[in-house]
Amino acid sequence: MDRRTFNRRMLVGGGVAAATGVTSMSLGAVQATPAQAAVVDPPRTAPAGGAVRHLTMYAEKLPDGSLGYGLEKGKASVPGPLIEINEGDTLHIEFHNLTDGDASLHVHGVDYDIASDGTRMNRSHVEPGGSRTYTWRTHAPGRRKDGTWQAGSAGYWHYHDHVVGTDHGTGGIRKGLYGPLVVRRKGDVLPDRTITIVFNDMTINNAAAGPDFEATVGDRVEVVMITHGEYYHTFHIHGHRWADNRTGLLTGPDDPSRVVDTKICGPADSFGFQIIAGEHVGAGAWMYHCHVQSHSDMGMAGLLLVAKADGTVPGYDPSHHTAGTAGEHAH
Amino acid sequence: MDRRTFNRRMLVGGGVAAATGVTSMSLGAVQATPAQAAVVDPPRTAPAGGAVRHLTMYAEKLPDGSLGYGLEKGKASVPGPLIEINEGDTLHIEFHNLTDGDASLHVHGVDYDIASDGTRMNRSHVEPGGSRTYTWRTHAPGRRKDGTWQAGSAGYWHYHDHVVGTDHGTGGIRKGLYGPLVVRRKGDVLPDRTITIVFNDMTINNAAAGPDFEATVGDRVEVVMITHGEYYHTFHIHGHRWADNRTGLLTGPDDPSRVVDTKICGPADSFGFQIIAGEHVGAGAWMYHCHVQSHSDMGMAGLLLVAKADGTVPGYDPSHHTAGTAGEHAH
Amino acid sequence: MDRRTFNRRMLVGGGVAAATGVTSMSLGAVQATPAQAAVVDPPRTAPAGGAVRHLTMYAEKLPDGSLGYGLEKGKASVPGPLIEINEGDTLHIEFHNLTDGDASLHVHGVDYDIASDGTRMNRSHVEPGGSRTYTWRTHAPGRRKDGTWQAGSAGYWHYHDHVVGTDHGTGGIRKGLYGPLVVRRKGDVLPDRTITIVFNDMTINNAAAGPDFEATVGDRVEVVMITHGEYYHTFHIHGHRWADNRTGLLTGPDDPSRVVDTKICGPADSFGFQIIAGEHVGAGAWMYHCHVQSHSDMGMAGLLLVAKADGTVPGYDPSHHTAGTAGEHAH
Repeated sequence: MDRRTFNRRMLVGGGVAAATGVTSMSLGAVQATPAQAAVVDPPRTAPAGGAVRHLTMYAEKLPDGSLGYGLEKGKASVPGPLIEINEGDTLHIEFHNLTDGDASLHVHGVDYDIASDGTRMNRSHVEPGGSRTYTWRTHAPGRRKDGTWQAGSAGYWHYHDHVVGTDHGTGGIRKGLYGPLVVRRKGDVLPDRTITIVFNDMTINNAAAGPDFEATVGDRVEVVMITHGEYYHTFHIHGHRWADNRTGLLTGPDDPSRVVDTKICGPADSFGFQIIAGEHVGAGAWMYHCHVQSHSDMGMAGLLLVAKADGTVPGYDPSHHTAGTAGEHAH
Repeated sequence: MDRRTFNRRMLVGGGVAAATGVTSMSLGAVQATPAQAAVVDPPRTAPAGGAVRHLTMYAEKLPDGSLGYGLEKGKASVPGPLIEINEGDTLHIEFHNLTDGDASLHVHGVDYDIASDGTRMNRSHVEPGGSRTYTWRTHAPGRRKDGTWQAGSAGYWHYHDHVVGTDHGTGGIRKGLYGPLVVRRKGDVLPDRTITIVFNDMTINNAAAGPDFEATVGDRVEVVMITHGEYYHTFHIHGHRWADNRTGLLTGPDDPSRVVDTKICGPADSFGFQIIAGEHVGAGAWMYHCHVQSHSDMGMAGLLLVAKADGTVPGYDPSHHTAGTAGEHAH
Repeated sequence: MDRRTFNRRMLVGGGVAAATGVTSMSLGAVQATPAQAAVVDPPRTAPAGGAVRHLTMYAEKLPDGSLGYGLEKGKASVPGPLIEINEGDTLHIEFHNLTDGDASLHVHGVDYDIASDGTRMNRSHVEPGGSRTYTWRTHAPGRRKDGTWQAGSAGYWHYHDHVVGTDHGTGGIRKGLYGPLVVRRKGDVLPDRTITIVFNDMTINNAAAGPDFEATVGDRVEVVMITHGEYYHTFHIHGHRWADNRTGLLTGPDDPSRVVDTKICGPADSFGFQIIAGEHVGAGAWMYHCHVQSHSDMGMAGLLLVAKADGTVPGYDPSHHTAGTAGEHAH
């Protein structure tokens, strides 16, 4: 629980900024000003989509033997970069497979032709050293010609390999070939930061102990939660809750959605939500963990470190904190 | 993944049509005209219920040793026949047990007296060679006398044995004694076809490899998804999504339901939804599978073969398709 | 399945009534008159909150070696007492640890400072023989200054130990240190009775066979369902259904929530709902059970005994009833 892995969101206009360490890309999203937004100004919201964007993505082997996706050569990460788009956007991804075996890019939630399926069966994978353009399209909600209502593409989705190891990508996912995709609807509230938490088998983001995340009281923190592998889990966070619906926020007093702080999830499930860090509970070291008892005991836990405005986290002693180990205390 | 097992829906007036191979029964449902409905005409919808119907159902042993329910002697299937009724209907089912042990019919979601519970404890099972009439009633939503709102019976439900092997029907369910029940509300959109997918332990519809289903772009395909047995699963379909609510469709722009393409499910869970085949994604061989990695690797996968109007499925090569086996590819 | 363990709700004004065997506490809840409420009078509803209450709670070892929470010394139970409060209430709980090891009180859903977290990391646990005041706050829904809507605290929540055995309370939960918490919103319909069902590993409320519960046709019975431990389960009840949303009730004809009679759940999940006992189905011995087949076969089942007004339960023969054992019947 010692790494700070907030995804850094960048404003990009039609491409990827040529900065080092780009770990996310955002199309059209406008950064909110946290301090003001939390007090009086309405939060910034997502604009209408409709843009056609181009992106380059690489699959490569990391020094520790895992596999990762990255937006630049040599910059792959686990999870892969956060991709944010708006309903109506089209994204062309030029995918380069720098690993030594077949690999692919399969996406959940958005629209794609069978040629962008990312499966071996549909011959949409990529040989070692090869490349392929995957096209992801999205659409806004609306009424069909027959009068029925069709959902838009907005959601907390994800992408992953579908061919490494088995025809379902079991080996690729296990080694780290997965990442988050957020599709926003015009008017969706934008967060100050986005955290990605992936329960992949008995790891969090492929680490034996969960990463810690940092925020300041009042920050609008967005969590994208994805599950992969073999096991079911229950995601829980201390001191904060969310609505179990599309946005994680209630639309108003008549929204019947359940508000939860624990949610069962299985492989390829994904959901997301926003919390106001420390709202009603204040600063502190707030645990998040899998609530399956043996899973948390074995290290599937991390911290949301919510600091006061002065930067301190009351009651938190990093030296006392045993980084995800499960202390056994005789009783 | 080589069998085509769309349930064939038949119009029946007060009973079961005397055709061979009846694998579903529908009360009052009016078949839509797919081609027109997808373009300009509003889709056909379910009428109000209120009918009293009679049905005969048989439990029998199939040649391969499994057990099945059927609407005619010698026509049992796994899953059992699709039963569709409308809120307000009453269904009297004359159940004949043609197996060599006790068997029963237990239903989820609808109204029944304790005498139709289908359990040994309530002595509502049937001895070998015996028969019993089970009565299933349904009701429309409405306001109670005390002013509170009561839900109607509409839903994607199911029926199964409750006594074979154990008092919870573990042996009967394992061998195939289960089937789908759809209860529609007046105004519910009617599909062009209904597919039943049952994750029963590590099988789909009791087969080691999942069945393939066929549709044409624009067809309104309804999926009834049921789980049975021991394991949890995550149901996923490529290229299509649904709303995680009663109908699987959003009611309009204010419906906060999550739109998903993956859903965790456990024994006796059931849900359903409609998709427009190929909408936004076109024709192709679209996989559906359990997304627990070892489950899909071991064969819990099938195809939704969405053809173009000319009948072809672009990119699909049946000879290349290895029928549910999990190819292991060295990396 | 032979124990009657309805939680007995008591009216308390600012404290706990000095009766023997107090197994629940309710702040501001007004008892409905079942017979009338079911016929013509509107049901009683929860009042607005805002009270500041004080409660004493004890953790102690029970004669059988399990651990329990109780509102009086020597009166601990498994599950712990039902605590009911209304949105806006604040509850100060003076917690006494009468066990021979560290113990704590960690709560889900409501608001608390890090000092009331109940974790070892935040030094908010209690040594043997010690005491500590945990403060739980709640809030009503409303609009934030930035215009977004914030959810209220209402929900079916729960509390549990977080330090016995491991830093996640695995030993404490296993031995029985858990209980239900209901937070009501002004206007929420009040039940006639509340049942707590906890699937804790392979037990129900830490018993090998599930408890039976009693009601009379027309009673508004509330179920609080909590899961703990290692396993996932599917909660199912015969003859009754609920809406999968905050209250378990539909708000009206436009509420798109799924109505279910089976729900998958994992450790620390909690949900609740109200049913009208025997509505549309009449009196009888209605099973509830985990629908994972081996779990129900091994005893994870109990009965909701719904009696007619004359007190009889048609078709129910207690001597025939094998108390949760899984009868194996050759086929």
